[in-house]
Amino acid sequence: MAYEGITFRGSRTAQIHKERFLRQNLKSDEVVIQITHSGICGTDLHFMHADIVLGHEGVGVVKEVGESCKTLRVGDRVGWGYTYWSCGRCSACLTGHESYCPTAGKYGAHHLDQGSFGSLAIKPEQWVFRIPDGIESKHAAPLLCGGATVFSPMVEYLKPTDRVGIIGVGGLGHLAIQFAAKMGCDVVAFSSTEVKREDAISLGAREFYATNDVADYTTLNVAKPLDSLIITTGAEHLDFSNYYKLLKPIATVIPLTISFEPMVVPTIPTIANGIKIAGTTPSGILIMIQTLEFAERNNIRPIIQEFPMTEDGIMDAMARLKNGDIRYRAVLSW
Amino acid sequence: MAYEGITFRGSRTAQIHKERFLRQNLKSDEVVIQITHSGICGTDLHFMHADIVLGHEGVGVVKEVGESCKTLRVGDRVGWGYTYWSCGRCSACLTGHESYCPTAGKYGAHHLDQGSFGSLAIKPEQWVFRIPDGIESKHAAPLLCGGATVFSPMVEYLKPTDRVGIIGVGGLGHLAIQFAAKMGCDVVAFSSTEVKREDAISLGAREFYATNDVADYTTLNVAKPLDSLIITTGAEHLDFSNYYKLLKPIATVIPLTISFEPMVVPTIPTIANGIKIAGTTPSGILIMIQTLEFAERNNIRPIIQEFPMTEDGIMDAMARLKNGDIRYRAVLSW
Repeated sequence: MAYEGITFRGSRTAQIHKERFLRQNLKSDEVVIQITHSGICGTDLHFMHADIVLGHEGVGVVKEVGESCKTLRVGDRVGWGYTYWSCGRCSACLTGHESYCPTAGKYGAHHLDQGSFGSLAIKPEQWVFRIPDGIESKHAAPLLCGGATVFSPMVEYLKPTDRVGIIGVGGLGHLAIQFAAKMGCDVVAFSSTEVKREDAISLGAREFYATNDVADYTTLNVAKPLDSLIITTGAEHLDFSNYYKLLKPIATVIPLTISFEPMVVPTIPTIANGIKIAGTTPSGILIMIQTLEFAERNNIRPIIQEFPMTEDGIMDAMARLKNGDIRYRAVLSW
Repeated sequence: MAYEGITFRGSRTAQIHKERFLRQNLKSDEVVIQITHSGICGTDLHFMHADIVLGHEGVGVVKEVGESCKTLRVGDRVGWGYTYWSCGRCSACLTGHESYCPTAGKYGAHHLDQGSFGSLAIKPEQWVFRIPDGIESKHAAPLLCGGATVFSPMVEYLKPTDRVGIIGVGGLGHLAIQFAAKMGCDVVAFSSTEVKREDAISLGAREFYATNDVADYTTLNVAKPLDSLIITTGAEHLDFSNYYKLLKPIATVIPLTISFEPMVVPTIPTIANGIKIAGTTPSGILIMIQTLEFAERNNIRPIIQEFPMTEDGIMDAMARLKNGDIRYRAVLSW
């Protein structure tokens, strides 16, 4: 039996092309997913210029399961994120950090013929997650990359007693504020302008600072120094010497900014103050499950703008994302 | 009663001047130490150009204790390191990371009228440590800054199952190799030339790589990737993109290099591989005690070159240290 559907592919000219999805067979450890929704993530903007099928925040319904599948059933509402596959046998896999498996299958590098921009996907069951009943599919999608990206380092590095700074109130930042607040942290939001102040406070920040035109962060007069700082902005260049003005000793800095420019980190202040800089992506299978469970239990939801799953809908959403006009996460739906 | 002794002070011209040490009174929480030995650390080279009394790896004998002192007694063999004082009341102090106390008293910033280059020191008992019987005073001195500097991040970040790279086989590196090996780690040493290969292996490294003239560390053909990397070299510029070629995912990089230049850290590899960069100094009072105990129990000793505690002896040792001629740690003694 063949599996047929529709996919949306990027191109060198950043035009989206609708194509036929066709697979002749299902491997025994795979599940077939009828896609209903997909989030759009900053990474999709990068890959618009590549000849690959786009999307990695997929949500849908299981249509068929391979004969070795262990937990998913036909009819289950499920989703997947950035990672598709991991070896199960390396030290990263065997310590619950499967995303760092050196041979992991990832969006943009593998499975280039299918993504969540489309009608059908076939994925290994290992990296497909049941969506909790309390979360609508359209809200689940952005949790599968954006949500897990901010929550994964929080579980690893933050304590509920921490005073946490979130730099940037956007797709990641508006989720980071909610997750940190629901962990009980003292959340401080930083945004370039005053525009998002009310949103940030209503999402759970207790303080808000606008950083535009502020060359020296000392002059922000932040009430108390921070235990940790999560950087979600899309800045080309991370100015750690400015961030360091906001921090307590032994603070943790979590840069989530994807930039081709290096981070420039002052050496002596890092050493003298015991600052930790923690690179991180959603670290493994367990954190994907925990992100969804924690969001359901604590009523964490992305604020979304919906677009149709069509060439025009995708182009429209992508253009708005590029211009910074999305409040706060775009979701495509059939 | 007055306390009189001799001290050795730096100067703008980097000449060492012998001076009279004089204190009129002893505070109730202080102890008076008759200095017998002092290590010389890289930081002392920086401060040779400052108008302060030098030295922060002091060892001696307690001559008198203030009336509030709790644990030390006259006649105890003791030592001290970089930090002299901490508030005891901030979150750093109350979690055993007293060195990161924002108001901590430190070498080069406080107590500028006394150091371990001299005959007498008066220090708060809080930061003075009894030397275990099994460690000779001349060997204890370099453990009090150099030893604690390498051991502190090991206790915090390393596991005995780690494959650990030590960059640089010098004052810090030759101690780092021993501590990591005695923790049971798989130790890999990197040095600019082949000169120190035998020393590194005899100290506990199982592999050794010479990095001079190697522009791309991939070509070192290191047998297996590393879980953690401790950088002890005095390089002006830390080339993280090269170090990253040696690492497993989720590795920890511990830069101990004191440099006024920033670290340049590739952003995407840090995030995608979950790399942690951990700034660190000897973190607190407990790790100072543990460094000495661990070294005694596991027979870790610095390899030292001895010099007399005189102006000429200090100038000689400093010149050799500057030229990289010390194998591996200089110790002054009366």
